[in-house]
Amino acid sequence: MTFSVSILATGSELLDGRVVDTNSNFVARELSSIGLKLKRVLLVDDDMEELLEGLRTLSTVSQVVITSGGLGPTSDDLTRDLVAQFFGVGVTEYPAARKHLEEYYVKRGRPLDDSNLKQALLPEGSTMIPNELGTAPGFVMTGRGNGPHPVTVCSLSGVPREFYKMFYDTVFPLIKKNAGATTPILRRAFRTFGVPESVAGKLVQASGLPKEVTVSYRAAFPEVHVVLKAPEGVDLDAPANKVRAALNRGVIYTEDSEQTLVQKVQALLIAQSATVATAESCTGGMVATQLTETPGSSEVFKGSVVAYDNAVKISALHVPTQILEAHGAVSAETVRVMAAQVRKAMNTTYGIATSGVAGPGGGSAEKPVGMFYIGVSGPERSFELQCTFGSERRSVRTYATYVALDLLRRTLEGLEIPDTYPVLGGVVAPKA
Amino acid sequence: MTFSVSILATGSELLDGRVVDTNSNFVARELSSIGLKLKRVLLVDDDMEELLEGLRTLSTVSQVVITSGGLGPTSDDLTRDLVAQFFGVGVTEYPAARKHLEEYYVKRGRPLDDSNLKQALLPEGSTMIPNELGTAPGFVMTGRGNGPHPVTVCSLSGVPREFYKMFYDTVFPLIKKNAGATTPILRRAFRTFGVPESVAGKLVQASGLPKEVTVSYRAAFPEVHVVLKAPEGVDLDAPANKVRAALNRGVIYTEDSEQTLVQKVQALLIAQSATVATAESCTGGMVATQLTETPGSSEVFKGSVVAYDNAVKISALHVPTQILEAHGAVSAETVRVMAAQVRKAMNTTYGIATSGVAGPGGGSAEKPVGMFYIGVSGPERSFELQCTFGSERRSVRTYATYVALDLLRRTLEGLEIPDTYPVLGGVVAPKA
Repeated sequence: MTFSVSILATGSELLDGRVVDTNSNFVARELSSIGLKLKRVLLVDDDMEELLEGLRTLSTVSQVVITSGGLGPTSDDLTRDLVAQFFGVGVTEYPAARKHLEEYYVKRGRPLDDSNLKQALLPEGSTMIPNELGTAPGFVMTGRGNGPHPVTVCSLSGVPREFYKMFYDTVFPLIKKNAGATTPILRRAFRTFGVPESVAGKLVQASGLPKEVTVSYRAAFPEVHVVLKAPEGVDLDAPANKVRAALNRGVIYTEDSEQTLVQKVQALLIAQSATVATAESCTGGMVATQLTETPGSSEVFKGSVVAYDNAVKISALHVPTQILEAHGAVSAETVRVMAAQVRKAMNTTYGIATSGVAGPGGGSAEKPVGMFYIGVSGPERSFELQCTFGSERRSVRTYATYVALDLLRRTLEGLEIPDTYPVLGGVVAPKA
Repeated sequence: MTFSVSILATGSELLDGRVVDTNSNFVARELSSIGLKLKRVLLVDDDMEELLEGLRTLSTVSQVVITSGGLGPTSDDLTRDLVAQFFGVGVTEYPAARKHLEEYYVKRGRPLDDSNLKQALLPEGSTMIPNELGTAPGFVMTGRGNGPHPVTVCSLSGVPREFYKMFYDTVFPLIKKNAGATTPILRRAFRTFGVPESVAGKLVQASGLPKEVTVSYRAAFPEVHVVLKAPEGVDLDAPANKVRAALNRGVIYTEDSEQTLVQKVQALLIAQSATVATAESCTGGMVATQLTETPGSSEVFKGSVVAYDNAVKISALHVPTQILEAHGAVSAETVRVMAAQVRKAMNTTYGIATSGVAGPGGGSAEKPVGMFYIGVSGPERSFELQCTFGSERRSVRTYATYVALDLLRRTLEGLEIPDTYPVLGGVVAPKA
């Protein structure tokens, strides 16, 4: 039997539709990256008979069965008993699991009661899988169960981010080892902002990558992530250069697969001992929220004025009434003053400002829903930019937030500033 | 055997991770709405042996099996042969299916070749399910297969919008008919903030709900949603009153299952023709972001000062240096001035302020990571409140944002203001 992996996902929330099972897709993609494929995925209810039958069936067709969910503290969390029964053992309290639970609850100031302590019970003989992000530890156990061959059962928390971490830390290395001669896959990641996925695809396609290199795209709105993969031994340096050339003009903001756009901006600000303040209208504090998401942000971010109301634009940011009357709140002139004023008032190196029509109301023929202006004020240059992005409020606001951050990044990196961002296709055009 | 439905989803794209199976979740939700539940979901590869084994197993546990996918024109589309083999019949061309295909391709100016015509072949004796949105018709067939009882197999296109339409048009009516006396389910939703899930559970449990009423809890951090369900005909008014009494003191912020906390706050502000502005430190603009998420927020929200840096607290919010020196930025005194100043500067009915130690750095013995103050300034009363919530930056900020919004809600509703929020368990205590 060729090596294979199956998944047993449990939870009534999966079968009554409250939750979509995304963990299986995650595992499928990861296995795929090393040339393996999932054999089966089975979703069953929190019912011991159903679970046992499912685990027994999957263990006859796969050498590794991953269970997702059922590790919580309530009576419908059956996975630890399931695995114990499957292997014919009991459950017992693991001191490391208990210690983890105690620390977890204390750290979060939450009460730890008997039902929570159930999560410290693991099948006898299993190895605990730490869960750094949540309460319930997982476990892995190998044995014959009832099947014709030994099977390794890995039981993980069903909460996606916990599942992912436990998978990477413990299960994936184990699968790689057990699967034998799978070829490691080399990767290069390019995180981009400012080019639609379809355009990125065409540009990369046209760059002439060798056949051994596979390209995948992930639209992480409003970013597009491009990943090159190849089996070990294949050169990825030349293909990476082709991608860099294809997606030129600074749309790749990082080649670090973990770094977010705002983290990149913060790193640049720190490196240049620079600071920033924001003056926000349509984004309503979203740029400031992003800039304060990471620890240490107080080093580079001083504050923000959210001037949603025009009266506040006048009183707190000193936008002249004449400008608002002549050009409107959504104008290059207004964001120019906003950016300059907040920079001056908060005594920062840079000021960035946003103003736009987030919708669904408030649009006009001249200034439709989705139109926004971003202003950047800095020591060497200041500029404004206009963009129009669709008409869905949340998307407009998110897109404006990213454009604001990306313009600051481009300024800090000394890159060219586009005339606008190509929301309707096409690459970023250089500013004349 | 009670009536049940299972799903067999096929396609290598599901098992190599290119596509997430969302059709199962769709069916789960629809079944749930009429009081039925999915029994099992099985994802298998396009492999006849795997498919046959899967269909055979599911047909022993369910009266209806829905297959998703495998109806396309290529060699790995096996569903029509699968169902034919399962029922021991052949496949034959259905004129209606052929006509549909011819019209579909002509209408779209696309060539119709032999491989496409494969899609006109259906299992002998099956009933065609029209596919108005795509090429491949589906089919439904009832028989004994190999199982102990008759089973109805409904084979639908795997493309979600085609799947949904075929499900609604044909499969759902059939399920409703076959399932016999399914009862519509009544629901009552209670959205709460300010009581941990474990405590909410204990309080509701102790309220003595009748057996026909089932309770479910969903932790939508930092909220807890409680849902009562009962079959039609059961009285839910009395149980709802019990829940209201159990979760008293205003922790239920809405009984509208769609309304968010900030939407509730906005509705109250609109009803009272009141406005709000925020002065934010540790939340960095998150309260303002929330208050501007909904269309029409400009009616009630004027603006915000994000005073991350102490210099901005002094310059933009006029917090006296002596207060910062004597009490620190994270203090009742500081948020009192911040809330009052932003209310005054932006000329609003209410001002709310946040200041805290979001972490991971910056904590001390006296003011640990996770401690924050919220200040509310209003026309009738102003107050401050201290909370400590764990030590994870994102959670601390989110929790502080919700406490700020909830205090405004309580003020607007004329409810008692708690001394603190019970992150350590227990219900909200009234302010002395």
